[in-house]
Amino acid sequence: MDLTATTAELATAAADVARLLPTRVYDPVLAGLVLRADGAGIELAGSDREHAVRLTRAATVHADGAVVVPARPLADTLRSLEDPQVRLVVEGSRLAVRTSTARFALPLLDLSTHPGIPPLPPALGTIPARALTAALTPVSSAASKDDALPMFTGVRMHSAPGGRLELIATDRYRMAFASLPWVPAGELDVLAPAVVLAEASRQPDRAAEVTVHADADRIALSWAGGSVSTALLAAPFPDDRVRKLLEAVIDSTVLVEADVLAGAVRRAVPYAGPHGSVTIQVDDGELRVRGSDPQSGESEESIKATIDGNRVTKTFQARYLADALRAFSGRRVELKIQDGLRSTVLTSQAGDDGVELTYLVVPLRQTP
Amino acid sequence: MDLTATTAELATAAADVARLLPTRVYDPVLAGLVLRADGAGIELAGSDREHAVRLTRAATVHADGAVVVPARPLADTLRSLEDPQVRLVVEGSRLAVRTSTARFALPLLDLSTHPGIPPLPPALGTIPARALTAALTPVSSAASKDDALPMFTGVRMHSAPGGRLELIATDRYRMAFASLPWVPAGELDVLAPAVVLAEASRQPDRAAEVTVHADADRIALSWAGGSVSTALLAAPFPDDRVRKLLEAVIDSTVLVEADVLAGAVRRAVPYAGPHGSVTIQVDDGELRVRGSDPQSGESEESIKATIDGNRVTKTFQARYLADALRAFSGRRVELKIQDGLRSTVLTSQAGDDGVELTYLVVPLRQTP
Repeated sequence: MDLTATTAELATAAADVARLLPTRVYDPVLAGLVLRADGAGIELAGSDREHAVRLTRAATVHADGAVVVPARPLADTLRSLEDPQVRLVVEGSRLAVRTSTARFALPLLDLSTHPGIPPLPPALGTIPARALTAALTPVSSAASKDDALPMFTGVRMHSAPGGRLELIATDRYRMAFASLPWVPAGELDVLAPAVVLAEASRQPDRAAEVTVHADADRIALSWAGGSVSTALLAAPFPDDRVRKLLEAVIDSTVLVEADVLAGAVRRAVPYAGPHGSVTIQVDDGELRVRGSDPQSGESEESIKATIDGNRVTKTFQARYLADALRAFSGRRVELKIQDGLRSTVLTSQAGDDGVELTYLVVPLRQTP
Repeated sequence: MDLTATTAELATAAADVARLLPTRVYDPVLAGLVLRADGAGIELAGSDREHAVRLTRAATVHADGAVVVPARPLADTLRSLEDPQVRLVVEGSRLAVRTSTARFALPLLDLSTHPGIPPLPPALGTIPARALTAALTPVSSAASKDDALPMFTGVRMHSAPGGRLELIATDRYRMAFASLPWVPAGELDVLAPAVVLAEASRQPDRAAEVTVHADADRIALSWAGGSVSTALLAAPFPDDRVRKLLEAVIDSTVLVEADVLAGAVRRAVPYAGPHGSVTIQVDDGELRVRGSDPQSGESEESIKATIDGNRVTKTFQARYLADALRAFSGRRVELKIQDGLRSTVLTSQAGDDGVELTYLVVPLRQTP
């Protein structure tokens, strides 16, 4: 293998592959970066059997070939180079990364023991990358990062009638639901790991068209220039219970600028007390955001809002409310407040990307 | 107490006081921020007996007074406010931080139990803040952050003949020495905690004139608008041994752009091996920077240099060499390489601030 490529492009791609691969593996080859050069350019890929990623970049290929090298030092070296062009060439048992003044020689790992990059499952539909990210970022934020139950770390994805794709995630304390338009080519019905999916959806250019692939075992996102795939979560998802939560019985409806409410919640955090809770009181034409802490003191801030319904008071985990409001940043959000400990439903008008988002946050038991 | 002030100014001052105060103290009042308002403006101060800080800011004072409140929530609240002006007013047992739409009420701590801000020791001389920071930042980087021996966490400061101030710090493995012009008003001869001193020297405006104060127990820096003081380290400093290290017997002298060598060292770090070491080989008209690691592979980079003397090869801890080179950023640095395991001496022309800097790095035993 012998090729010349733009350093910055190669550096970004190597960093993306390295980031998507695990760093702690029993076999170093699974943390290796597979480089494959041919007439079409260079492919940077990696797989630890569970996840797989494959990115292609332009390169002037002097000699075809394929090698696997440690991902992290290659990514670090490419990132720190100041030369605009870099040459990658196999020299004996090393892949040499060469500039006019430097040579970095990475040991070749055993390509024959690498599991290879699994082929993509069948294509089931396409979505603009921008819309997919707009839906996946907030939905995946409602999934747990480290729950013992895989169900709460996943995003439920399934195709709905009328050319819609639906995404749901919950960690018991909040739930996010997005519906967005897609061009289906088959039925999608999976539970996929939220973190990997959100990260993968940020890979392609925002203008790109993303294809969703899935079979019984894996899900993949692909676009011109790359793909990421991962094993599905083998867990049942309580679809019926989750959908029932979306049927809200409204006690009071509040219309407010999401960023204004988020600012008030952020300022109440130093006063959120040992449980990190803030209280929202619905009043005439305004919301009052309150905090109280034995050490820090008390806070109260009023923000303008359009109110329809009863005067009610709800207490929330401040960070859950902040996560929910971040999903509606830049927009007016509607808070539908239900009675008692039933969750508060946040929604807003669909954006011009057609993404409809609903976020549920379960209130805390009120301390008298 | 009742006053109105510019939010941003107050927020910066409160954050600076909160940062310079310890967060874990047995008595909450020692982590408190003392606010004192009078005709001259507002003073924000704090002291845990060991450290003390006092900053003054402009304010429209409606009623004089003094209170102590928890520092962290006050700093966090001021930082997150969007209103350009803020009012601080005592209301019963609370200090209210008020804007047009919000009220944050901090509990008043017991001012009578606060140790107070110790008076400044006698003034011993003045220096421009820019020169003091230029000398203290690199010198304090050579002190240890957490050594069991206080000597290695301190900066030795003493006045030298000819209107010079000398600063020395070492953690055994490297040593930094700075000499800079000052206007003495007495004899200075102390060992002061490096971290506090470096932090304090960054507080005043770079154009400000800083006065150094000291007595047998404390050192303080003061400037128009503030002061920071701290207890001295009660440890002997091996002045004679340290000064002997500065008398180098040169084997080879290398003149090189500090940032170019720093870049090559940074690129060698992924190959620096389990001990984090890089090797510098002095050759004809160039330096070769090398790394070698069983997992990552090998690196070699050549950089142009003016060489005078023997061809030698030295191995260094990469991060110590990087710290040393950072001190000479933007300048040409002279490396005076000595024989065997004697330290390598880095120097450069004094800048227009008159700061002369010498940095010693002890090489590692070479692996064959």
